[in-house]
Amino acid sequence: MPLLVVGSIALDTVATPFGSAVDAPGGSAVFFAAAGSILHRPLQVVGVIGDDYPMATLRALEKRGVDLAGVERTAGESFRWKAKYSYDLQSRETLETRLGVFAEFRPNLPAAFRGARYLFLGNIDPELQLSVLDQCPKPALVACDTMNYWINGKRDVLLELLRHIDILMVNDSEARELSGDWNIYRAARWILDHGPKRAVIKQGEHGALLVDDGGVFKVPAYPLEEVFDPTGAGDAFAGGFMASIASADDASPAVLRRAMVYGAAMGSYAVEAFGIQRFDRVTREDVEQRVRAFRDLVHFDLGAATR
Amino acid sequence: MPLLVVGSIALDTVATPFGSAVDAPGGSAVFFAAAGSILHRPLQVVGVIGDDYPMATLRALEKRGVDLAGVERTAGESFRWKAKYSYDLQSRETLETRLGVFAEFRPNLPAAFRGARYLFLGNIDPELQLSVLDQCPKPALVACDTMNYWINGKRDVLLELLRHIDILMVNDSEARELSGDWNIYRAARWILDHGPKRAVIKQGEHGALLVDDGGVFKVPAYPLEEVFDPTGAGDAFAGGFMASIASADDASPAVLRRAMVYGAAMGSYAVEAFGIQRFDRVTREDVEQRVRAFRDLVHFDLGAATR
Repeated sequence: MPLLVVGSIALDTVATPFGSAVDAPGGSAVFFAAAGSILHRPLQVVGVIGDDYPMATLRALEKRGVDLAGVERTAGESFRWKAKYSYDLQSRETLETRLGVFAEFRPNLPAAFRGARYLFLGNIDPELQLSVLDQCPKPALVACDTMNYWINGKRDVLLELLRHIDILMVNDSEARELSGDWNIYRAARWILDHGPKRAVIKQGEHGALLVDDGGVFKVPAYPLEEVFDPTGAGDAFAGGFMASIASADDASPAVLRRAMVYGAAMGSYAVEAFGIQRFDRVTREDVEQRVRAFRDLVHFDLGAATR
Repeated sequence: MPLLVVGSIALDTVATPFGSAVDAPGGSAVFFAAAGSILHRPLQVVGVIGDDYPMATLRALEKRGVDLAGVERTAGESFRWKAKYSYDLQSRETLETRLGVFAEFRPNLPAAFRGARYLFLGNIDPELQLSVLDQCPKPALVACDTMNYWINGKRDVLLELLRHIDILMVNDSEARELSGDWNIYRAARWILDHGPKRAVIKQGEHGALLVDDGGVFKVPAYPLEEVFDPTGAGDAFAGGFMASIASADDASPAVLRRAMVYGAAMGSYAVEAFGIQRFDRVTREDVEQRVRAFRDLVHFDLGAATR
């Protein structure tokens, strides 16, 4: 079943204590596609690039089955983002944001994309996210990301959007800011009270939560002794999560839980290298192996109590 | 099998956004005993109180099978600690610490306690922790807590202690400070390289990790929409963890994983009320029910992938 992502396509200049990358291909749609395409095709991308964008990156994604018919190339500079991480990677400072052609981005879905069944609205202006929904009339499941900039700046539009999506996927600070509640479970319930049937709360090195009326599911982060660049982990998580669901063509509770684990596995790959590099070397079998490792990470047996 | 704890017995004055408590019975040994005694007896306590300590609290613990023969009562003021938590309970400021009789505490184990099989050394001066080990020659398993004050102030003694214990149980910031490494898995490995066969890293609202040469086990924190007072959660965790192991009289990997879950359950009770109040109303059956809820919290089925 077709999986569609709309989001940013960027060139990231990132410095961490372990090195730096200049103009590395990134952005939410690129991380999503790099991760998701390992699990599922067709994966359709809608976004915009300037005429300076390195086409080799897009061709490499195409080779892996990503459909870029929705990527518009226009005259001007590609979206650029520059940031520096703290010594422990726990915080980052955005040094520069140059929107370039992204400033005028108006998603326009090719006719062939309008039947997408699984839809991920990456972090862009909620007005544009709504316009994508208008162009894609019958999705089986819509998940959506956002950020503090829209939570503060376009709150009313965002609240309207929430009424039309199935899953809101945000990180913990965003959930807190959106709900005005610091308790993450109350914040999740606030989200459920405003439209989405489910909330996915990303917690960085602590993993992620899936919350719905049935309860809470927690997936930890994969234990890594070496983390090089946290950029894009959340979008890679989304790619793994949505691709797992699209691949099953099923959004039942058991499939969603499993999808959280695929998401966490993809997030762990994202941080093991700068940009999307790590995904060049990840096979489907690697992913299955890492996903099985999550089972051992959380497995316990209450029966052992009675020995 | 006898489980022994040595630690502080304190009167805590705590303010959170939800209220405050004045001179509430607390301290590591009291939280440990309040939680652990629900799962296991005999539970032996070694500590010191002043002549101002409310004896009703100790009698209530005794009624639940806690053996207080190792609690010395001396002339003077009991240990008092005063703290205020931030609005989101994520940080706290210590407003006052009055050691009182705790300043001269020299653990002296009654003869009947010296055969304890399971031993928890609560957060006190590592020299005193070593002296307890000297008095208890044949424990099957020794776990130990510490804090930044000792990590910085008595590092050499602490490193000597590490060579004689089986499990170091600390929170994440302590593990980072001790090892000098911000990556929590490398920090855990540093601990394993310095004596203990296992490290338990407490991560507050994110749960806890058990790390040994065999790998990592993660237990999440129990999802709570209402948290009143985080004080003592780590000691209650330790009480549940150690009592679960002592009760099984077995420290095999499966039993340790299960013990982590009992620890997390006890930690969740601790934060639901001020001081040890909540444990007055917790039955063994309540605990078993909460422990089973952890299974649902992390359970996923990879088989669903192939439907």
